[in-house]
Amino acid sequence: MDKKRIAIIGASGYTGAELVRLATSHPGLEIASLVADRNAGLEMREVFPGFRHLELPRLIDLEALDLAGIDLVFCALPHATSQTVVKSFPESVKVVDLSADFRLRDPAEYERWYGKPHAAPELQEQAVYGLTEFYRDEIRGARLVACTGCNSATGLYALLPLAESNAVDPEEIIIDLKTGVSGAGRSPKEGTLHSEVSEGFHAYSVAVHRHLAEFDQELSRAFGMQIRVTFVPHLLPQNRGILATVYLRGEAGLIYEVMQSRYAHEPFVVVLPKGEHPSTRHVRGSNYAHIGVVPDRREGKTIVFSTLDNLAKGSSGQAIQNANLMLGLPETTGLESAPLFP
Amino acid sequence: MDKKRIAIIGASGYTGAELVRLATSHPGLEIASLVADRNAGLEMREVFPGFRHLELPRLIDLEALDLAGIDLVFCALPHATSQTVVKSFPESVKVVDLSADFRLRDPAEYERWYGKPHAAPELQEQAVYGLTEFYRDEIRGARLVACTGCNSATGLYALLPLAESNAVDPEEIIIDLKTGVSGAGRSPKEGTLHSEVSEGFHAYSVAVHRHLAEFDQELSRAFGMQIRVTFVPHLLPQNRGILATVYLRGEAGLIYEVMQSRYAHEPFVVVLPKGEHPSTRHVRGSNYAHIGVVPDRREGKTIVFSTLDNLAKGSSGQAIQNANLMLGLPETTGLESAPLFP
Amino acid sequence: MDKKRIAIIGASGYTGAELVRLATSHPGLEIASLVADRNAGLEMREVFPGFRHLELPRLIDLEALDLAGIDLVFCALPHATSQTVVKSFPESVKVVDLSADFRLRDPAEYERWYGKPHAAPELQEQAVYGLTEFYRDEIRGARLVACTGCNSATGLYALLPLAESNAVDPEEIIIDLKTGVSGAGRSPKEGTLHSEVSEGFHAYSVAVHRHLAEFDQELSRAFGMQIRVTFVPHLLPQNRGILATVYLRGEAGLIYEVMQSRYAHEPFVVVLPKGEHPSTRHVRGSNYAHIGVVPDRREGKTIVFSTLDNLAKGSSGQAIQNANLMLGLPETTGLESAPLFP
Amino acid sequence: MDKKRIAIIGASGYTGAELVRLATSHPGLEIASLVADRNAGLEMREVFPGFRHLELPRLIDLEALDLAGIDLVFCALPHATSQTVVKSFPESVKVVDLSADFRLRDPAEYERWYGKPHAAPELQEQAVYGLTEFYRDEIRGARLVACTGCNSATGLYALLPLAESNAVDPEEIIIDLKTGVSGAGRSPKEGTLHSEVSEGFHAYSVAVHRHLAEFDQELSRAFGMQIRVTFVPHLLPQNRGILATVYLRGEAGLIYEVMQSRYAHEPFVVVLPKGEHPSTRHVRGSNYAHIGVVPDRREGKTIVFSTLDNLAKGSSGQAIQNANLMLGLPETTGLESAPLFP
Repeated sequence: MDKKRIAIIGASGYTGAELVRLATSHPGLEIASLVADRNAGLEMREVFPGFRHLELPRLIDLEALDLAGIDLVFCALPHATSQTVVKSFPESVKVVDLSADFRLRDPAEYERWYGKPHAAPELQEQAVYGLTEFYRDEIRGARLVACTGCNSATGLYALLPLAESNAVDPEEIIIDLKTGVSGAGRSPKEGTLHSEVSEGFHAYSVAVHRHLAEFDQELSRAFGMQIRVTFVPHLLPQNRGILATVYLRGEAGLIYEVMQSRYAHEPFVVVLPKGEHPSTRHVRGSNYAHIGVVPDRREGKTIVFSTLDNLAKGSSGQAIQNANLMLGLPETTGLESAPLFP
Repeated sequence: MDKKRIAIIGASGYTGAELVRLATSHPGLEIASLVADRNAGLEMREVFPGFRHLELPRLIDLEALDLAGIDLVFCALPHATSQTVVKSFPESVKVVDLSADFRLRDPAEYERWYGKPHAAPELQEQAVYGLTEFYRDEIRGARLVACTGCNSATGLYALLPLAESNAVDPEEIIIDLKTGVSGAGRSPKEGTLHSEVSEGFHAYSVAVHRHLAEFDQELSRAFGMQIRVTFVPHLLPQNRGILATVYLRGEAGLIYEVMQSRYAHEPFVVVLPKGEHPSTRHVRGSNYAHIGVVPDRREGKTIVFSTLDNLAKGSSGQAIQNANLMLGLPETTGLESAPLFP
Repeated sequence: MDKKRIAIIGASGYTGAELVRLATSHPGLEIASLVADRNAGLEMREVFPGFRHLELPRLIDLEALDLAGIDLVFCALPHATSQTVVKSFPESVKVVDLSADFRLRDPAEYERWYGKPHAAPELQEQAVYGLTEFYRDEIRGARLVACTGCNSATGLYALLPLAESNAVDPEEIIIDLKTGVSGAGRSPKEGTLHSEVSEGFHAYSVAVHRHLAEFDQELSRAFGMQIRVTFVPHLLPQNRGILATVYLRGEAGLIYEVMQSRYAHEPFVVVLPKGEHPSTRHVRGSNYAHIGVVPDRREGKTIVFSTLDNLAKGSSGQAIQNANLMLGLPETTGLESAPLFP
Repeated sequence: MDKKRIAIIGASGYTGAELVRLATSHPGLEIASLVADRNAGLEMREVFPGFRHLELPRLIDLEALDLAGIDLVFCALPHATSQTVVKSFPESVKVVDLSADFRLRDPAEYERWYGKPHAAPELQEQAVYGLTEFYRDEIRGARLVACTGCNSATGLYALLPLAESNAVDPEEIIIDLKTGVSGAGRSPKEGTLHSEVSEGFHAYSVAVHRHLAEFDQELSRAFGMQIRVTFVPHLLPQNRGILATVYLRGEAGLIYEVMQSRYAHEPFVVVLPKGEHPSTRHVRGSNYAHIGVVPDRREGKTIVFSTLDNLAKGSSGQAIQNANLMLGLPETTGLESAPLFP
């Protein structure tokens, strides 16, 4: 395979490292540059000793990045910093952005949720939302793809097919979501210390989480009306994995049929046998999402479960999947490894 | 304090050990007998080395148990075995039962959920449901108290005050519950191995969990109408702690007032400041339950959180609290230790 | 019991919180002041929500601390800051210091290991090393006690009796130690994030850890000759607990006899039956240390295991035990709770 | 690549599942049969839901296994059952055995450590010990390869190069080893429950572990004299990963040179820069072993660290590596994925 040359910006974070992990076993990608401002000058193996056996370019700072000959840039920077960085790139380079910066189509919504005006609204216009299974054609032709939030992806896999087919009551959607701690990143904070996270469980950002903006946007579009879901995320004492338990008004039989039919030919979204429900541990480290549909004991109520690995299908795996499309490679290339268990 | 003499049956399980832990720092209780059929003949320190420094009676089998001089028996046996054991006791001995055997007032309900007729329906009639804060007076005079399921207690603390005051729509109650693995007991099963539980998360017994029977019974009684809630329990990769996220139709302001007023004088149920929500790690090892009330962003919807330690307030702490009442001791005796964190 | 009034400085760290936990169930202590510079003005329950049910003084900064009427101060500050703080106290107030500042008798040793001169060498002279079982009489009469390092305590319980009785070869001592992450404190660092610690294991500070200074000092004194041990600490993916595996040249029979005899009347150091070895989980949250002696298969070699809870017997429990002695209270007061398991 | 057809016996255990995981992303292997007596009749996805997206043969029992057309059998059965199974195979089929059955060259040693006579001593004679880096040529031509114990492999990587070059004192070798719990397998036992393992740490099989037999055999052979090491394994509260801390009498400079030179061209054994030491988390899920050499502060003493993933390089990865050699495939095929972190 003729290798496409990529750069990864933000290589010393967890999503950056996950991109490196996936890219180094991807037959169609070659890592040309690794950018990490804070750690510029170091070898990747000094920041992530698990890469010790690999030959990788030394970490550089953004100024030193030469985009000549680069086919695609993965931008894994913190929210709000990505927009100015991407703005500085020549039009010729394709970009997969993993931050929240280009996810919201409406700049006013962006400002409302993130508290300041968007710095590159003209780029926002060309950005395609990166939920591959629902924007595949647009992604194929896109120059800039905005990968979804990992929580959003998990919820949307459970809900978008039902919205498209009007299988549930749009006024009564509750997403109770539980996520691993790696989604909070590698920057030291008291709240993500081992002593604070392990052997305990709590909710966070109840009813105000920024991923609500993505739910609002995507579900309103899919349902064809303004949607406001209830969304409560919780922090799990584990590193990887998100599981959403979605409470719906709708018939389990119909919901199951819709799911099965919608995902029948999707390589990475697996619908479990009716009545079964998934576990985060069965997708750990993989690009697969598992969906389960279980009837409630109450008539006309159904529970839909959705799970994925936040660093893989929820961000870096999704990013590679989108990059495959943008680069004309087979969509599944480099992403079919089975999950790691136990 | 003149010590009351107790026996603990089922001393080699986790709730049995928790009873021993609590009883040995309780100034009013003296452990007279420890019964554990499978481990009879062993010292408690051989089964739980953490008790090595304590002088405790040797484990005996049930046949060897002499109830003369025993004031109260804690029965921490597996479900279905407790009823015949308690049946064999003389009327003079008080019993706190930690199994599910005496929780359901209606023997028909018992048979429906547990698949066989109740073996001691005459005892069922005198049994008092052990949710202390709601049955305090009956417990004080009871001969037999049936401690609640740990999941049930967690949900009922969030719901019973609202039922009593009609603060929420009884048709729209969803309990999304997450529980630590110690509730599954010490018997070896594949599903509770470290390799199967750690670093992962999943639901179990979706919409069919037996604790539903307790929810039905207690909520129907409190609401004064037949109630059917939606209940989905999940297994957390941690040992202790349950957190219920309860989705309700009702005004947060009213709900908060009801909670505050109902629990204002309760020693062990703490209502957090409005808008705050609890964590299992802040009740670990203690007899306290924490309740939080948070308004949803959607009008007229509220999220109530309830958390407790399944082995303490959820079973053995609750059992001691009830025993205190039954024995005429101050209710909080031996139960006021602060939680262990981290 | 007539209560002694205490102040806790550094109340918002883990050892500070552990002091509060233990003091609030101690019948002879009353918490008069809680000092925490960074969090001054907050309630303790805002920093540690597990204390929500307790009435505690509001956190103040050091300048606001009034020592009038205070019997004893627990100083749980970071290393190097404690010496100047303690220096400012009037002679009349007793001090239990939990930092490393007063552990090394020789100021030159302090400077060598900590890289700068000691700021209060005159206080160092009066400080007593806080390993209760070996300095009980001095502690009883001390004004200033320097609690040991948690790693040091674990190793010294295994070694000091053997040194006193010359039961092992002092030239061949290897301490392979494993410690939980709470010992690293609550300040956010990349290395103690959940994602970095859980599901993994590694050594740290190999052969250069500062606790070596304590080993050198105490073992040289006990053996009556200059001792240099090999010491390799490792970080466990758990919060509480230290276990030292100590490799020795010496006869297991003699070693066991020495241990048994030395600790026979100690309330908190338990020697397991010969050939058994301990687990950190059986001392969790308690003030007990467990010691095991196992013969190696090689003649004349013995393995001694020592375990304790780093936050309890390793620091805050030890501190309370010493304070009991200094205040004329029974040594075991408030410290006899059984460990929390599971 | 023309695919070789393999069968996996014992497919429902952890090493069996790891073989399936690795084989399904191996370009040269095709899984022809999966044998699992207890679960015969089930689909692999029912036993390990993480394989749900894969097309795999249904699990069969051993009697139904047809070896016609099978190039190689992986036998991942419990100890003592493997020998009779392998005995029943035709000579034409190659076998990689993951049990302990064929590791000890001397049948008398086998009987001494495993308590009964070997059932297939004639097969033992042709078995090659599966530590690839030290038996590569023999493995290439072998019909039957006995994969090493995972603990043994970890220790031997640290010691064999030093034995071959006489760089250390053979009389003074101490292996303090820490291992994840997945090595104990998927059969339910009290000791491997989550509640018993998490948040705790202890030694096991002190000085009597059966892997000692492998150490004795391999080290005696390498040193050219009878060797008896001290070996203490401990159980970590994590699923994957082994780390051995090996205490040696020998010069760190020489030891480092020996290591570097011995492993310079090995694809899967990585020697860290001098003075650095490894972490289990940096090899998780991968076929890499990391070795670190650190001088002790005591003259002439050195600490060597060795780490690997017990299910990968410690058993199933090692098995695939050996199978590659036996089947004439490039040795590294299918094994070069980077570790999963976090």
